Amino acid sequence: RPLEATPAAIRHVKDRYAARKLPLTPARRRLARIPRGATLIENPSGTAPGFWIERPRSRICFLPGVPSECRPMFLASVLPETEKIFPLRRVHTAFWRTFGWGESRLYQEIAPLVARLEKKYPHTFRFGVHISFPCIDLSLEVLERGKRPSQKEIAALTAHIDKTTEQILVTRERKSIPEVVFDLLRNNRLTLSAAESCTGGLLGKTLTDFPGSSHAFVGGVVSYANSAKQQLLGVQKQTLENHGAVSQSAVEEMAQGIRQRLGTDYAIALSGISGPGGGTPDKPVGTIYVAILGPRRSKTLHQVILNGQGSRDQNRVIAMNLALDALRLMILDDLG
Amino acid sequence: RPLEATPAAIRHVKDRYAARKLPLTPARRRLARIPRGATLIENPSGTAPGFWIERPRSRICFLPGVPSECRPMFLASVLPETEKIFPLRRVHTAFWRTFGWGESRLYQEIAPLVARLEKKYPHTFRFGVHISFPCIDLSLEVLERGKRPSQKEIAALTAHIDKTTEQILVTRERKSIPEVVFDLLRNNRLTLSAAESCTGGLLGKTLTDFPGSSHAFVGGVVSYANSAKQQLLGVQKQTLENHGAVSQSAVEEMAQGIRQRLGTDYAIALSGISGPGGGTPDKPVGTIYVAILGPRRSKTLHQVILNGQGSRDQNRVIAMNLALDALRLMILDDLG
Repeated sequence: RPLEATPAAIRHVKDRYAARKLPLTPARRRLARIPRGATLIENPSGTAPGFWIERPRSRICFLPGVPSECRPMFLASVLPETEKIFPLRRVHTAFWRTFGWGESRLYQEIAPLVARLEKKYPHTFRFGVHISFPCIDLSLEVLERGKRPSQKEIAALTAHIDKTTEQILVTRERKSIPEVVFDLLRNNRLTLSAAESCTGGLLGKTLTDFPGSSHAFVGGVVSYANSAKQQLLGVQKQTLENHGAVSQSAVEEMAQGIRQRLGTDYAIALSGISGPGGGTPDKPVGTIYVAILGPRRSKTLHQVILNGQGSRDQNRVIAMNLALDALRLMILDDLG
Repeated sequence: RPLEATPAAIRHVKDRYAARKLPLTPARRRLARIPRGATLIENPSGTAPGFWIERPRSRICFLPGVPSECRPMFLASVLPETEKIFPLRRVHTAFWRTFGWGESRLYQEIAPLVARLEKKYPHTFRFGVHISFPCIDLSLEVLERGKRPSQKEIAALTAHIDKTTEQILVTRERKSIPEVVFDLLRNNRLTLSAAESCTGGLLGKTLTDFPGSSHAFVGGVVSYANSAKQQLLGVQKQTLENHGAVSQSAVEEMAQGIRQRLGTDYAIALSGISGPGGGTPDKPVGTIYVAILGPRRSKTLHQVILNGQGSRDQNRVIAMNLALDALRLMILDDLG
């Protein structure tokens, strides 16, 4: 089909550039050309519009490939359009986000019950195990059309999953661990500071992904080198010499140092070996120490993440989530 | 085709779990089942193998969908296999990574020359403009087969691009700005510290993505709240009261504070309004102040990122890259 700049498309492109205070050059105007007869899909985050093409028995949608533009367009335009064509009525949904077990271990615990229902109600019962790294999600949907599980069958499965995931459940909502912790802090007017070594600022970065975070996350120190641990947090030279920077004593002094300096309700300190280098027989790659200090109690964790098989990036992300999940449990305990 | 657990696939799955010190349960053993007649593709980063299926005139490859497993498998197995079938001999390649201009402005400057060569040599001349957010990449390939551009034509285009990108070129290699800066620091035994406000730890996190980074990035402070700027960096209360936390005076004091405490060669400080809230007519969302302090000079930047049209995430990523790119230029100046 020939390309045409339709009035709607020209308006879209013009508006997008006007919002950025940029002139509509000929190169930019070309973005408004879409195939003849196509229907425009608005792009709220970028300049290039998308479009639908109608075909016999099908409809094809074209979107820009950049995820930050494609995703909002899909959610705002494509998904609602598609649901109009294929209405999908759910009579029951449930969701569990867990942290701590692997996918296969978790699935093994619930597979027999799930498989029985999947077999009995192939068109209306849907169960999924998904990775939202480093969490594992379980999701359950019962559709309206056709023979479907009874209330009792659903209740039995739900009770079994609740019991199985008791120790590892993070939330029943689609929120990340940092988001759950951030909401807990903000909703209860609690403050947090952090002393990060191996994560290098990841925890601070992640908690400040949320707007308005300064009320909950006051700040922290990235004490990547030993000198920074001493200078910025007051960790004793002797502690580092006797126990090393990756040790229970070091993270405890780091947490005390940051909490004292910033006067927050809670403080987190992390120190570990993210790899790929730096591991020893005593402290292999993946070793992490976490200290959590609260108004009523303190807690120290020590773990070898993924048995030392994780990448640097995985080790750092898991370390942050380990720390924040431990903080979550402490806050819940403290709130009673 | 029926599924079979081939000896090679069983060995693959067994080895992967053995490396993680996990037993080979029946559920895990199922990962070794691949279609009859398929050829195994090793998965170095995960447990589930991939496989090839041969068909008349085609070969289909199946990989796990997790990007961290899919990508290495593609690079290690699929790409070399594909290049055997379709040999693609390049007689010339060139690459430019730029930072500062938008995609369309950059393309406009070089479009006439590029379009002429594309038309003249449609099968052997390939030019691409790609976004590696927040950088824009230009890449050039000349293939062997068929009529292709002369040395002189290539040299003329290259010279034109060199001149056009003079002020915005970051690197001729496929490295990010943080990686370029990290290499500059490490190769010249220079140290850096950072005081981050709006980026909340992103700069520290990013510089410590690289192993062995403690020699270059000593540490920093995440002074998200004003109290942290005073307590951890010694920023004057009066400065914050008179000029605000997002001001030239504030970032200058932050940079001095962290450089003094950690004794590094260079120090970076950032303070800005990432949005979506917090903007004022004077300091709209996207406003960023950066101070760079070095052994010989200092520099302050002030900009409204993306004219205030960026998302919180974009504003933070661009702020970090602005700061690191300014640091890169200062280090290059200092090295002479």
